Amino acid sequence: MTAGAIADPPAGRRTQLDPGHLDLERVTGRFGTPLYVYDLDVVEGRVAMLRARLPAEVDVAYAVKANPSLGVIATLGALGLGADVASGGELAAALRAGIPPERIVMTGPGKRDDELEVAVRARVRAITVESPGELARLEAIAAALRTGTAAPVPVLLRAASTDAVPAQRVPVIQGDAPRFGMDRADLFAAATIATGSAHLELVGIHGFGASNVLDAEALVRHAAGTFALAAEIGRTVRRPLRLVDVGGGLGIPYRDDEPDLDLAALGDGLARIMASYANNPWLREARLLLEPGRFLVGPAGAYVTRVLDRKRIAGRAIVTVDGGVHHLLRPALVGQAHRVTVLSDGPGDPEPLSIAGPLCTGLDVLAASVTLALPHPGALVVVRDAGAYGFTESMPLFLSHPTPAEVAVRDGEALLLRARIDPATWLDAQHIPPGG
Amino acid sequence: MTAGAIADPPAGRRTQLDPGHLDLERVTGRFGTPLYVYDLDVVEGRVAMLRARLPAEVDVAYAVKANPSLGVIATLGALGLGADVASGGELAAALRAGIPPERIVMTGPGKRDDELEVAVRARVRAITVESPGELARLEAIAAALRTGTAAPVPVLLRAASTDAVPAQRVPVIQGDAPRFGMDRADLFAAATIATGSAHLELVGIHGFGASNVLDAEALVRHAAGTFALAAEIGRTVRRPLRLVDVGGGLGIPYRDDEPDLDLAALGDGLARIMASYANNPWLREARLLLEPGRFLVGPAGAYVTRVLDRKRIAGRAIVTVDGGVHHLLRPALVGQAHRVTVLSDGPGDPEPLSIAGPLCTGLDVLAASVTLALPHPGALVVVRDAGAYGFTESMPLFLSHPTPAEVAVRDGEALLLRARIDPATWLDAQHIPPGG
Repeated sequence: MTAGAIADPPAGRRTQLDPGHLDLERVTGRFGTPLYVYDLDVVEGRVAMLRARLPAEVDVAYAVKANPSLGVIATLGALGLGADVASGGELAAALRAGIPPERIVMTGPGKRDDELEVAVRARVRAITVESPGELARLEAIAAALRTGTAAPVPVLLRAASTDAVPAQRVPVIQGDAPRFGMDRADLFAAATIATGSAHLELVGIHGFGASNVLDAEALVRHAAGTFALAAEIGRTVRRPLRLVDVGGGLGIPYRDDEPDLDLAALGDGLARIMASYANNPWLREARLLLEPGRFLVGPAGAYVTRVLDRKRIAGRAIVTVDGGVHHLLRPALVGQAHRVTVLSDGPGDPEPLSIAGPLCTGLDVLAASVTLALPHPGALVVVRDAGAYGFTESMPLFLSHPTPAEVAVRDGEALLLRARIDPATWLDAQHIPPGG
Repeated sequence: MTAGAIADPPAGRRTQLDPGHLDLERVTGRFGTPLYVYDLDVVEGRVAMLRARLPAEVDVAYAVKANPSLGVIATLGALGLGADVASGGELAAALRAGIPPERIVMTGPGKRDDELEVAVRARVRAITVESPGELARLEAIAAALRTGTAAPVPVLLRAASTDAVPAQRVPVIQGDAPRFGMDRADLFAAATIATGSAHLELVGIHGFGASNVLDAEALVRHAAGTFALAAEIGRTVRRPLRLVDVGGGLGIPYRDDEPDLDLAALGDGLARIMASYANNPWLREARLLLEPGRFLVGPAGAYVTRVLDRKRIAGRAIVTVDGGVHHLLRPALVGQAHRVTVLSDGPGDPEPLSIAGPLCTGLDVLAASVTLALPHPGALVVVRDAGAYGFTESMPLFLSHPTPAEVAVRDGEALLLRARIDPATWLDAQHIPPGG
C-alpha cells in the first residue's frame, strides 16, 4: 500500500453519530457529564465513504489538529491514513498512536528549532517550509543532524494562498492579509535554494486554501491552482516533484440547511486534474496529498451535557446545562451554534428556548434558539458534530470546572480515552510566592 | 476590619506593568518563552488606587475568574480583599490561597449540587441564587447538611439585568435574551420563599451589569438601580438586608484611545447612593459589595513571546512569534488586539506589520497592524494588559504546544507560579482502545 493510501471501504457503515444508537444514559452514568463521545465506527464509515470517491493516486493524511485524541488517531492510522501534524506535540501524538513516520507531514507557520529537529530525526515524509528564514533554519538543522549516509530531508514549500475559496466566517482581527506560506518570488527562490542544497530534497509544494469548505468545485479549483503552480516550479528547477499537498478544507454541514460536501464531484475533479498531468515531466510521478480533519471526525463526535436547571426570564425559556463553552468553544468562537438533540423531552409543547452553560459569561451559550419541549432537569443534551475542533479547541481551565471525559464507542462498547480531570489538579501545579 | 474591606493604600505604587522595569530577558532566559508574567507590585498598586477612592462601606471581592493563579489570589487576599468565585474549583482555589470563607461569595448561572454542597459546608459569606429551581435545590441541600445549631445558609438573589450598561462588543450567538438571574416576578417570589425558610437567610441581592465598562456613570447608575431593587425587596419581605452585590464590570483600556475608568466619579457616585439609603430601614446596615477582576489584575500582567521568523507576503511584513491565541485567546475571541511592545527593535524604519503565532489557523493573530521597525528573530514581544482573562481563558491544548509558564515578579524577584507543561503529559493521560 502506498504511504497514506486508505484500505478498501467496508460496506454499509454509519457516517453520522446517532444519539439513538448509542446508549448515552449508560455511558454518562459510567463516566459522568459533561463528556465527549466519539463513535469510532462512524469515523471508519466516513473514511470508507471518502475513500470510495477518491482516485487511487490520492493519499490522505489526517489533520491531527481536528482531534488529537490518541484513540482517534490510532483508529485512522489503522485504516492506512497518514497524519498532518502542526506541532512537535502533534508529531509525538501521531507516532505514539502508531502512524509510521513515512506517512507523516509536518506543517505550521511558526515551527521552533526543537520541533524541526524532532521532525528531521523522525524522518517524516515531508516538512512544510513557510518562509525563506525557516528554510535556512531547517537546512542548518538538517546539516547538523544528518550523518553522511542519511537521505536529505524532504521539503514541501508552502505557497501563500491567493485563491478565494469560500470559507466560513470567523471573527478575525487580522484583516485580509495572508500570513501563511510564501509569495511567488520567495517561493521560486526557495525552490532554487532547496534544489541546490545537499541536505534538503524538494519533494513538492503545499497550498492550503480555506477551512470547512462545502463547495466541491471550490476545492477542485484550489487543487488545480496548486498543481499548476507545482508544475511551474518543477519546470523552473528542472526537478520532478513527488508530492502536491493541497491541504484539507473538506467541510461538514453544521446546520440543517447546509448541504453535504459532494464527494463524487470532489473525487472526479481531482481525478481530472491528475489525468491532465499524466504526461507532465515534473508531475507525472506526483501523488496528491489531501489533509482532511473535520470531515473525518466532526460528525463522529458529540458533546453530552445534562440539564441542571430551567427558568424563564420575561417569558423566554432558558435551559442551563452542566457543560458549556469551556469544553466546546466553537459556538462562541465562530459565532455559530451546533445542532442539539435533547434526550427525554419534557411533556410540554415545543417552544423556542436557549441552552446555556454554567459559566459567568455571556459567551456561554450552546444553542441560542432551538424549538423543543422544555426538558426536565437531568435530561441529556447532545451537542452534535463536536468530534472536530471540540475539546482541544476550547478553554478547559476557564472558571476551574472539571474537564469532560473523552469516551470512544466501538461495536457498542464504551472505552475511556481520557479521564475527567479535577480542577484541584491545577491547584497542585501552582505555587504561592512567599508573603503572598 | 470588616469582611472584604481593603487595607490602607501604600503610596506611590506603579499601576501598570512596565516592560522596561522588569528584566524580561533574564526572566525568559530562566523560564523560557512564551510565558505569562504578573507584576504583583502593580496588583498592589491597583488595589491601593481603587481603595483610595471607595467609601468605607464598600467591600471588595476579587473576581477569581479573571485570573485564578494562586499567587494572584493570595496577593489580593493578603491585602484584605474577599473573593467572588464562580465554581467549586474557584472556591477551592480561593480557600487554598488563604481567603477566609467569610469573605467569599459564590456566583454562577449553573451550579451543580456538589458545588452548592461545598459552598454550604465552607460557610461562605453568601451564595448567589440564579433561579427558583436553584433556590429549591439549595434549600434541600442546606436542610440536609445543617446540624441543629448551624446558622442558616446566607443567600443573595440574583436579579436579571435590565440595565443597558454599555459593554464591549463580543461575538455572541445568543441574541439579546438575558440568561442570568431572575426576572421581577421570580425574584420577589424567591425572596418570600428564602425569608420563610428555616435553612436559608436572605442577606441581599446581586445584580451584575456588564463587563469591562469604562464609563463610571454607567456603573453608578447600575449600582443605584440595584440598590433601589434591594430596598423594594427588603420592604416587601419586611427584612433588613445586609449586602447589596452590584457585581464587577470595572473596565480597563485596551487601546491608547480609550480612557481610564474615572475612579473618583465611581467612588463619589457609590458614596452618594449609600448616603441616600442611610435612613432606609431595609438597607441602612447594608454593605455594598464590588467584584472587580480585570481592573485589579489585567494591567499587571503580560504575555511574553519571542520572534521566530519574519517574512513578507506581497510586501506586507509578518512577524511570527512562538506564542499565540492558544495561550492568549482574547484577541480572537472578542475581536480586539492588545497593545504590544517589542523589546530590541530592528534597525529599520517603522512600518505596519502583523504579529502572528505558530498555529495553523487564521485566528492566530496577536496584533493585526502595528507600526514598528521589523524586529529580528529572537526579539521579545510583550503583549500588554494580559493579566486578566489571559491563560485560563485560552485554549492550552489546541495544537499540542507546551503551555506557558506563569511567573510572578515582586520587589524585582521572579517567582514561578505554574510551570510550563509539556504536551507529552497530555499523551500520558490518554488511552488507545484495543484494536485502534
